[in-house]
Amino acid sequence: MRAVVMRGANTLVVDDVPDPVPRANQILVRTLACGICGSDLHFLRCAEEIVELSRDLGPWGSLDLSRDIIMGHEFSAEVVGVGSGTQTALRPGDVVVSVPLMPADAASRGRTEPIGAYSNRWGGGFAELMLLSSLLAIRVPDGLDPRRAALTEPMAVGVHAVRRSGIATGEAAVVLGAGPVGLATVAALRRLGAEPIVAADLSPARRALALTMGAHEAVDPRTEPAVEAWRRLGGGRPLVIFEAVGVPGMLAQAIRDAPRHGRVLVVGACLEQDTVRPFIAVAKELDVRFSFGYGPREFSDTLRAIAEGTFDVAPMITGEVGIDGVPAAFEALSTPGEHCKILVDPSRGRS
Amino acid sequence: MRAVVMRGANTLVVDDVPDPVPRANQILVRTLACGICGSDLHFLRCAEEIVELSRDLGPWGSLDLSRDIIMGHEFSAEVVGVGSGTQTALRPGDVVVSVPLMPADAASRGRTEPIGAYSNRWGGGFAELMLLSSLLAIRVPDGLDPRRAALTEPMAVGVHAVRRSGIATGEAAVVLGAGPVGLATVAALRRLGAEPIVAADLSPARRALALTMGAHEAVDPRTEPAVEAWRRLGGGRPLVIFEAVGVPGMLAQAIRDAPRHGRVLVVGACLEQDTVRPFIAVAKELDVRFSFGYGPREFSDTLRAIAEGTFDVAPMITGEVGIDGVPAAFEALSTPGEHCKILVDPSRGRS
Repeated sequence: MRAVVMRGANTLVVDDVPDPVPRANQILVRTLACGICGSDLHFLRCAEEIVELSRDLGPWGSLDLSRDIIMGHEFSAEVVGVGSGTQTALRPGDVVVSVPLMPADAASRGRTEPIGAYSNRWGGGFAELMLLSSLLAIRVPDGLDPRRAALTEPMAVGVHAVRRSGIATGEAAVVLGAGPVGLATVAALRRLGAEPIVAADLSPARRALALTMGAHEAVDPRTEPAVEAWRRLGGGRPLVIFEAVGVPGMLAQAIRDAPRHGRVLVVGACLEQDTVRPFIAVAKELDVRFSFGYGPREFSDTLRAIAEGTFDVAPMITGEVGIDGVPAAFEALSTPGEHCKILVDPSRGRS
Repeated sequence: MRAVVMRGANTLVVDDVPDPVPRANQILVRTLACGICGSDLHFLRCAEEIVELSRDLGPWGSLDLSRDIIMGHEFSAEVVGVGSGTQTALRPGDVVVSVPLMPADAASRGRTEPIGAYSNRWGGGFAELMLLSSLLAIRVPDGLDPRRAALTEPMAVGVHAVRRSGIATGEAAVVLGAGPVGLATVAALRRLGAEPIVAADLSPARRALALTMGAHEAVDPRTEPAVEAWRRLGGGRPLVIFEAVGVPGMLAQAIRDAPRHGRVLVVGACLEQDTVRPFIAVAKELDVRFSFGYGPREFSDTLRAIAEGTFDVAPMITGEVGIDGVPAAFEALSTPGEHCKILVDPSRGRS
């Protein structure tokens, strides 16, 4: 099959690789759409560092960067085969999404392993074919465009962040950053009934998207800091600040901006060292919660919200490429502001 | 009266200053004992920076460092006079403690102001006399040594930190740092029934004090990191890490040491810039709460716990000085490990 392979020192190569073969409790699927995630860009740039940082953090410690890795964990796909001995209601032709995880088997030493990046064994959606767990894959409701379904994964990140923040209906939210994670957060906040929701981003295109996804106000932080807009619109309401940028300086800014007894939810994953002033957080008695991923129930809940149109994710899709277009799409995404979500559709001809 | 005055550029001077005169809703008290707090040392060293940092943080913004400041906010005192027009059950001879705050008056522009440091108006307990609010002062139960009562304030900081952490009976705690705040935290954790309580400190004397105050284990972090001791003693129990050191690097250590979904309660007030790696906190989905001070109910609850012997604070008192001994005591406390709490007793002769 054709695949985009991360090979050697932080390089993407389009190549032919062997088709994967499903075993018991696995299904073979044909990728229909797979989003390129900010974490994929990070991983391509700083894989060594991420592996080093991740060694003690969970199931991602056993990665061998000298071997091929096929990224892509935001996918929808069509079932084309079922491993022998697999009990499943899924049939060839069904469209599915899945949390990008493969349950433990003998070779994983008891560990659930990730699919797409962080794994040498389980290739992701930047390829024509992939293997999924028959237990974790869920059928996409009839009539839902597989391209929209592919946004289940990033939208679930926002759903989880909002739930984890503890924010209540009628409370105010500031969302720093209107990339895919920030926009998912905005949509989940809007569904909950948070108000006002103020998004901040340097890019006019992303600010427009934030309004489309449910923000009541979208500000350019160089013109009006987001907390100033919160004061103007709903300063009496308790505030949660969502940090969805994930670059150095943002955590410190959230801490500086938060009101006394304020809450900060960090969902942007800043890999670099960052500098904060603990005394400011102490004197204001802040709560700073960090959020990562989502649970399986949040994932299926998110798929349902997309299918029902509660989350209208179509405007977030700003580009589509075939397999051959992936390296250039990574380039394009590394300049913020141009794009939101680029989907990879391996059935598309060479671009 | 004799007083220790912070005057000019970060200097302590023993001097004669005018006696304060109580007005309505104020009582004049004679200081019996007043602890020297780590924050007093900080304030003497970096007052300009603290004032700058505090400008947006609350009631401490209007301090004039060019005018005299009398520090000391951990006091017990004897009532010697009552301002005219004051309704109070307090009588001369009563021993009192108080949250170190003076309610708003016309001159404070509606703001409650601190007593002792952070204020030019309301001198603290490093003086023979001081003014307290008749509304906030509370009578010390008969028979309680005023020196023990003076520890109400620092012990309340630990009571508040433990409550704010949300830790439950039977959950485990690691307390980084066994200075007065760390020890107060240990005592409050023991009262709650946290188990095991592991304290960590470089100083053997402080480790011994931690055991006296209720820790189940006290480790030298150079020999055994505190979280290792937690794993050894009660690794199955949910853990809250209390950061009670407040120097650069400790927040990062707490984040690094915390288990997945762990909780960190920061009660050490690190004034300097500190460096953290947000990704580690994100990947582990940590909760980091910051704690400051206490409420009036926690303060009176703490006094009761000291009076009843639940908090046996006597071992924490490692020195007593008169007014003239305060500058040298500040010196002695700036070398950690020698002392825990030094009390100032203005009735003591010149040392």
